[in-house]
Amino acid sequence: MKKAKKVINDPKNIVPELLEGLVLACHGKIRKLEGVNGLVKTSLPPGKVGLLIGGGSGHEPLFHGFIGDNMADGAPCGNIFAAPTPDVVLAVTEALDNGYGVLYLYNNYTGDVLNFDMAAEMAADKGIRVKTVLIHDDIASAPPEKKHLRRGIAGDVLIIKIAGGIAAVSQDLDEIFRVTTKACDNTRSMGVALSAGSLPETGEPTFILADDAIGIGMGLHGEQGVGLQKMMPADAIVEQIMAPILADLPFTSGDEVCLLINNMGSTTTMELLIVNRKIRQILSRKGIGVYDTVMGAFATTQEMAGFSISLMKLDDELKRYYDMPAACFGCKWKGSRGQG
Amino acid sequence: MKKAKKVINDPKNIVPELLEGLVLACHGKIRKLEGVNGLVKTSLPPGKVGLLIGGGSGHEPLFHGFIGDNMADGAPCGNIFAAPTPDVVLAVTEALDNGYGVLYLYNNYTGDVLNFDMAAEMAADKGIRVKTVLIHDDIASAPPEKKHLRRGIAGDVLIIKIAGGIAAVSQDLDEIFRVTTKACDNTRSMGVALSAGSLPETGEPTFILADDAIGIGMGLHGEQGVGLQKMMPADAIVEQIMAPILADLPFTSGDEVCLLINNMGSTTTMELLIVNRKIRQILSRKGIGVYDTVMGAFATTQEMAGFSISLMKLDDELKRYYDMPAACFGCKWKGSRGQG
Repeated sequence: MKKAKKVINDPKNIVPELLEGLVLACHGKIRKLEGVNGLVKTSLPPGKVGLLIGGGSGHEPLFHGFIGDNMADGAPCGNIFAAPTPDVVLAVTEALDNGYGVLYLYNNYTGDVLNFDMAAEMAADKGIRVKTVLIHDDIASAPPEKKHLRRGIAGDVLIIKIAGGIAAVSQDLDEIFRVTTKACDNTRSMGVALSAGSLPETGEPTFILADDAIGIGMGLHGEQGVGLQKMMPADAIVEQIMAPILADLPFTSGDEVCLLINNMGSTTTMELLIVNRKIRQILSRKGIGVYDTVMGAFATTQEMAGFSISLMKLDDELKRYYDMPAACFGCKWKGSRGQG
Repeated sequence: MKKAKKVINDPKNIVPELLEGLVLACHGKIRKLEGVNGLVKTSLPPGKVGLLIGGGSGHEPLFHGFIGDNMADGAPCGNIFAAPTPDVVLAVTEALDNGYGVLYLYNNYTGDVLNFDMAAEMAADKGIRVKTVLIHDDIASAPPEKKHLRRGIAGDVLIIKIAGGIAAVSQDLDEIFRVTTKACDNTRSMGVALSAGSLPETGEPTFILADDAIGIGMGLHGEQGVGLQKMMPADAIVEQIMAPILADLPFTSGDEVCLLINNMGSTTTMELLIVNRKIRQILSRKGIGVYDTVMGAFATTQEMAGFSISLMKLDDELKRYYDMPAACFGCKWKGSRGQG
């Protein structure tokens, strides 16, 4: 397999250089902490509970691209595909805390849990109250009875939106924890991989998939899904993904959902639109309403081809936070309904 | 070269199916015309000059993804990488006109010019006034003395934003033509191709580029640029693109620009951020201010790897229209400065 060409300079400078580019692209709204790969908003009102998101780099705009108005307040940034270390998480935690505590919100991967948990302990030693919500929306990664083992994937974007909303209006860490947990509990995702991305430092593929194979439920780094299959038409792929998503919560007639279709890297908008057509046919048949549609490259793994579908079941409370205006580098909340 | 896997159904249904998906993703804000591949806004206030954009499909979100509030009013959609036929352009023209005329705004490619010009003549026969602004921002496609031969590339996104603004507040086709022409005249772009996309119907690559080669100034379909070179670090690529852009208008110290960094398909946000870092170093050295930064996949050619840089020089008038709120499927105007 030939190596990917990557527009980078020295491979060991990828993360600091991309963070520098991100800070510049945000025109004064975020800043980098001295000496660590962590970003925080420049304007943090007194009395605000800090919303801290984070994970490995190389998945941009996730996570650090979701710091912004009514979104996250800061993000520790790991190396490429690696969790941020506890000292970085702690540095961002300290920058965000002004006495009201900090909510950690991140994807459920072993390395992340270890590092964020250690940082939470260190923060507690310094008198900072931290609560954690783990994102585990990927239904392909464990059966319903083992939900706590599920990985987080692109549904995190919707969950961060809700968390950013409640964290902007409440000063109560427990209340922010409650609403964010509800957003997590109401979100289900599943993806399909068509071809691998590459390790940007070397250009080597992140996994190997045969020319005619696709991996239903495969994770962002090639983690095992529900099995490899032969390439098939768009509609057949969508049916295979939607059936287990709808069964899992379960979503039922009369439900209203926010629909996110995430491009893992090199899948085109042309394809995602064809996918959307089939999703809507399935949802319409089931009597499930779509409150808003979010489509684009949010949680990526370099030039990996594939997409995931996420549904977040809405109620009046979640809708209220979903409808709040929001602005950040990596999201587009104005596309469909014009709110935000 | 192996074939790309594409998430499609029957290849001959790609365009109608993606348009159906787009209409659904826009939640009632746009509709498809009966019998032709053309989209228009559902709400067109009386007395509005129609802003009509368009071109081949397969470049999504360009063009049809830019119909929206204070953006375009309608778009005829060609087949994959093919201009829309005159009957489709005419159908959208008739749907948009309510006595105040229609502005055609599209990229300068021979096939598009032939088809849109023929539609403009047919519209004139029906008493509809049409004026045309051709987008020709790609400085790699012809020297300054032959500006009229230059192709349009991703700078069209910025130009559509300005045109959408003035077309929302003026009922005078000549005035809308004047401001849109100024936006075109103030915009310069150049790109680099790292690897080809594919023809979605067949999976065959759109052009061939050696494993270690990149094409500076290469067009979206593999059109000739300023020459092939060996792959080089990000900063060196950016320097080679920025020098001719800055020299062409020319942009000078004290200028304020809107900066657009367009992903042609599979180039990552990680890479675009590293590119942004170098662009800002160059602009800062030249004393050129960046009013806003727009980054993402706007004008794409399937999974082609590469990016382009566009600068639009702003004055108070262009800023006024740039700052207007806007919402559409394919753009994100809230990312950086929070306006819109």
